[in-house]
Amino acid sequence: MSKKLVHTPEGVRDIYGMEYARKLAIEGMVLDKVRSFGYEDIQTPTFEFFEVFSREVGTTPSRELYKFFDKEGNTLVLRPDFTPSMARCAAKYFMDQNVPIRFCYEGNTFSNTSSLQGKLREVTQMGAELIGDASVEADGEMAAMVIEALLETGLKDFQLSIGNVEYFKGICEEAGLDGETELALREFISGKNYFGAEELLLERKVEAGYREVLLKITDLFGAAEALGQAKRLVRNPRSLHAVERLEKLYEVLCLYQVEKYVSFDMGMLSKYQYYTGVIYKAYTYGVGDALVKGGRYDNLLGHFGKSAPAIGFMVVIDDLMAALERQNIPVVLPEKAVVLEYTDKNYKEVLAEARRLRGEGRKAVVTQRHRDA
Amino acid sequence: MSKKLVHTPEGVRDIYGMEYARKLAIEGMVLDKVRSFGYEDIQTPTFEFFEVFSREVGTTPSRELYKFFDKEGNTLVLRPDFTPSMARCAAKYFMDQNVPIRFCYEGNTFSNTSSLQGKLREVTQMGAELIGDASVEADGEMAAMVIEALLETGLKDFQLSIGNVEYFKGICEEAGLDGETELALREFISGKNYFGAEELLLERKVEAGYREVLLKITDLFGAAEALGQAKRLVRNPRSLHAVERLEKLYEVLCLYQVEKYVSFDMGMLSKYQYYTGVIYKAYTYGVGDALVKGGRYDNLLGHFGKSAPAIGFMVVIDDLMAALERQNIPVVLPEKAVVLEYTDKNYKEVLAEARRLRGEGRKAVVTQRHRDA
Repeated sequence: MSKKLVHTPEGVRDIYGMEYARKLAIEGMVLDKVRSFGYEDIQTPTFEFFEVFSREVGTTPSRELYKFFDKEGNTLVLRPDFTPSMARCAAKYFMDQNVPIRFCYEGNTFSNTSSLQGKLREVTQMGAELIGDASVEADGEMAAMVIEALLETGLKDFQLSIGNVEYFKGICEEAGLDGETELALREFISGKNYFGAEELLLERKVEAGYREVLLKITDLFGAAEALGQAKRLVRNPRSLHAVERLEKLYEVLCLYQVEKYVSFDMGMLSKYQYYTGVIYKAYTYGVGDALVKGGRYDNLLGHFGKSAPAIGFMVVIDDLMAALERQNIPVVLPEKAVVLEYTDKNYKEVLAEARRLRGEGRKAVVTQRHRDA
Repeated sequence: MSKKLVHTPEGVRDIYGMEYARKLAIEGMVLDKVRSFGYEDIQTPTFEFFEVFSREVGTTPSRELYKFFDKEGNTLVLRPDFTPSMARCAAKYFMDQNVPIRFCYEGNTFSNTSSLQGKLREVTQMGAELIGDASVEADGEMAAMVIEALLETGLKDFQLSIGNVEYFKGICEEAGLDGETELALREFISGKNYFGAEELLLERKVEAGYREVLLKITDLFGAAEALGQAKRLVRNPRSLHAVERLEKLYEVLCLYQVEKYVSFDMGMLSKYQYYTGVIYKAYTYGVGDALVKGGRYDNLLGHFGKSAPAIGFMVVIDDLMAALERQNIPVVLPEKAVVLEYTDKNYKEVLAEARRLRGEGRKAVVTQRHRDA
């Protein structure tokens, strides 16, 4: 027998028993919270045209996409990320709508990474998108909803770290950096690679004053006080507005009474280039990467033909499960089934008893008594 | 802008708003019923090694599979059907278990059909598998559970048509048909193509007596009385046992009090060759094809290295939705969100009101009042 017959491909797996019951329970808690904010479920296809996730959209690099063909010869892609699909839907179905739209989704995403990276290639993501609302209150709703959703699962020790890519862009613009240098610098700063960033800035002969400011960005993180520090460092209006936006956002988050879960990080930048303003990531212990990622992507819908601001978040359910498990946080699971055994003589009565239990909303298994029992 | 940007590939689609709310509600009703019988959720990867769905397994033909490669050069396939994955899991994780195992699943399946067929290429399937129980009571549980699940959704006018592939195989064996002829005949009978079947049997010089019996199979359908007719037609023990199994199954279904939804069809054969005994399909008006398909597949697990009997069913949720809609059967949907509008002055109070509503389990949207309102 081929080994391939019972094994799953590398990076994907089966989930069953208690582990899957936990996963479903956690999914349910996050989704219920998001729905309580009036977000409506949407389901998009598992694969889309390659163009939806193309380079211009600024999502996953092409080499990490699973690509294949349909019978008409189109290149299809297993979705690596939901946001471009959500933007496509918003553009397609709500082209003429001017009131804000609230979407939520749950499903699997796929990344064709090399086995050396040791990452899961299929994960379950859940998320929400608020489209057509550019306000700071919208930023606040998204951040507060993420925090409330994480609290709902029982997680307590976590931080939602908030940045604003406009701050960095404002400095780059003022310093006269070209797009290529900005992109390379972004990679170094995202990766907290101070020396790489320094070398790049020296090589490109960036003025000493700006060099200093750009390198300092990686230090600008912490509680609300970090915002004052960030403000004092810059003079260009774009960066100043970016800080002021975060100051207002902090006020909104105080109204939601979730400020103790919030910190700021001006050096936070995303690998997804479609983010335009406020971005955030939630961190907790027990998982290496960010548990939640999200942010504002005011230009992405334009790519699909509708000009509208938007903000969203997504949580990787598999990572949330791992965090809860490593932090020994119990998840309330549905009750187990009652097992009713029948013999040749009482089958009818056992069936009736099972029916009665099921009618009461309980679970009942009907099974034959073992002869040797 | 490319047209591909806002469109989904042919045969797949977006679902949102009321339609998706209906789909989720229907999925929930079917799944809750199955869980009430003690079936436990399992999730397998969206793609598997090609070998899991290979020709020997007897599932979807290779030309209808979406195939692609991972970075290690393995051929992967988007699952066309859940049953082989479930069999693989049962073999892998429950190799040494002798008590019956009950699995249920929900997810999408994919078929790379030509656009001329006009079929959906991604559908949502839900199903259950009972592994390690060869009894007629297991057959009965599966059939009764299907009927109760359909009733739960509000469907009333439907029939679960039950057959037994052993009846047909017994006659083929007795008549000395070779495997190839049996397969070709199976196709004709499945397709209710009487003339094709007749021509084949004449061409292969099948004895007149057997020819007559084989052609009569397509007429053997109806209420429990059809079983007596089927019994009188054959003498070989394999076919006789097949009918007796259905007679016993009918008794079990009477105990479940679902017999009025049941009919028999000795000419029912499946395109999936892994079915070995009792098979069934549920039909209703408003959808062309069978809404539910299932049956016994006692040899499939052996292919994955565990010898165990098994029976299962699957329902295509998209078809069930279509049937309910065309029959004007209402589906109870979750309540809509309350919309709370805020102005510059009352934002804090509106947030508090939203929190209160959400705390009561209700849904609330907080949105800015339009200036012109």
